[in-house]
Amino acid sequence: MLQLYFSPMACSLASRIALMEAGLDARYHLVQLRTKQVVGDDSDFRGVSPKGAVPVLVLENGERLTESAAVLQYIADLKPDTGLAPRLGDPDRYRLQEWLSFIGAEIHKAFLFPTFWYSDEGSLAKPRARIPQTLSVPSAHLADHEFLVGNGFTVADAHLTWALLLLRPAGVDIAQWPSLSAYLERMQGRPTIKEAVTTEMALRKTLATGPA
Amino acid sequence: MLQLYFSPMACSLASRIALMEAGLDARYHLVQLRTKQVVGDDSDFRGVSPKGAVPVLVLENGERLTESAAVLQYIADLKPDTGLAPRLGDPDRYRLQEWLSFIGAEIHKAFLFPTFWYSDEGSLAKPRARIPQTLSVPSAHLADHEFLVGNGFTVADAHLTWALLLLRPAGVDIAQWPSLSAYLERMQGRPTIKEAVTTEMALRKTLATGPA
Repeated sequence: MLQLYFSPMACSLASRIALMEAGLDARYHLVQLRTKQVVGDDSDFRGVSPKGAVPVLVLENGERLTESAAVLQYIADLKPDTGLAPRLGDPDRYRLQEWLSFIGAEIHKAFLFPTFWYSDEGSLAKPRARIPQTLSVPSAHLADHEFLVGNGFTVADAHLTWALLLLRPAGVDIAQWPSLSAYLERMQGRPTIKEAVTTEMALRKTLATGPA
Repeated sequence: MLQLYFSPMACSLASRIALMEAGLDARYHLVQLRTKQVVGDDSDFRGVSPKGAVPVLVLENGERLTESAAVLQYIADLKPDTGLAPRLGDPDRYRLQEWLSFIGAEIHKAFLFPTFWYSDEGSLAKPRARIPQTLSVPSAHLADHEFLVGNGFTVADAHLTWALLLLRPAGVDIAQWPSLSAYLERMQGRPTIKEAVTTEMALRKTLATGPA
């Protein structure tokens, strides 16, 4: 069985959504990112992945795959009939890779990461100034498309939905981009996303208030 | 014919190397990133790509593809016999995607981008403090591997070579990681990389001193 190391509402949420959309069972391991501990056995998460970051997907052969862009494509390719990624060889596959890179680098690593991990104002002024230009890219696309790639839900939508969910606690009101808020509302209506977010929000409360 | 919008020694260098390794002719358009002008006709680069970032690959059908991770895989898949990317369906393909994501997000967007675009010390302290941990990841892999993926040169090596070349002007001495400096030296011995860097360094001087 696949195993996913995740932290509640971290970018590994997209991998959970992808697994659910693919109908794949998995064993989920909760990681406390600040302390790098695997909750449950208190083992050092860096023993699982020296990067110390989620997601980590443990494959059936025991190998460990990291980075959302790779993990999401791996999951999607296990169930090609779901359409979670355009099939290998379909030109839209490169559009999927383009969005995964943009979301992972420009929204996550250039903005959300400094916002949640660098608490000082000096670190945050420049990333904050840049986020409106960044968000104008998916906003323009979604003004006349229901999904990021083609005509159906793909793992890129799982990735962007996670990023948009985090923008509010990061101090960005996406109501400024009506196509983004309409998209997020549509995505939040999907049963898998609703269930994944409910599960992880509950776990986050446990982490925040529990002994860990 | 393919067309590549690039800026000298920006991350589009990796796409130039990939095109050369694939033996693909392309028309190259030089972009002045600070002014967002296409050098030659002084047109607005944001008309080519609203992101205003390189690389932009114009495909044979006129569509424009952005983001190194997507552009590099696209180029590699045009010439699968070169081995520039593991073939679609090969498990190593996900390792390639894992490295492309890591280099693009963790080295480029989390460190090199703020270093070259945010000039104030306040913005740079945190990214600088984090780069040794980041570089320990490829350093550990390359301590006992000649290349990032499998046993041959892939587009992930083109991407990492670019990132390592930029670390010195970004104030990071990679001699601290002997496996990284040995790797960079090997990569700099490749004829395509030597030629690509010579070409772009000469163009960079033109940009820096010329009327543009």
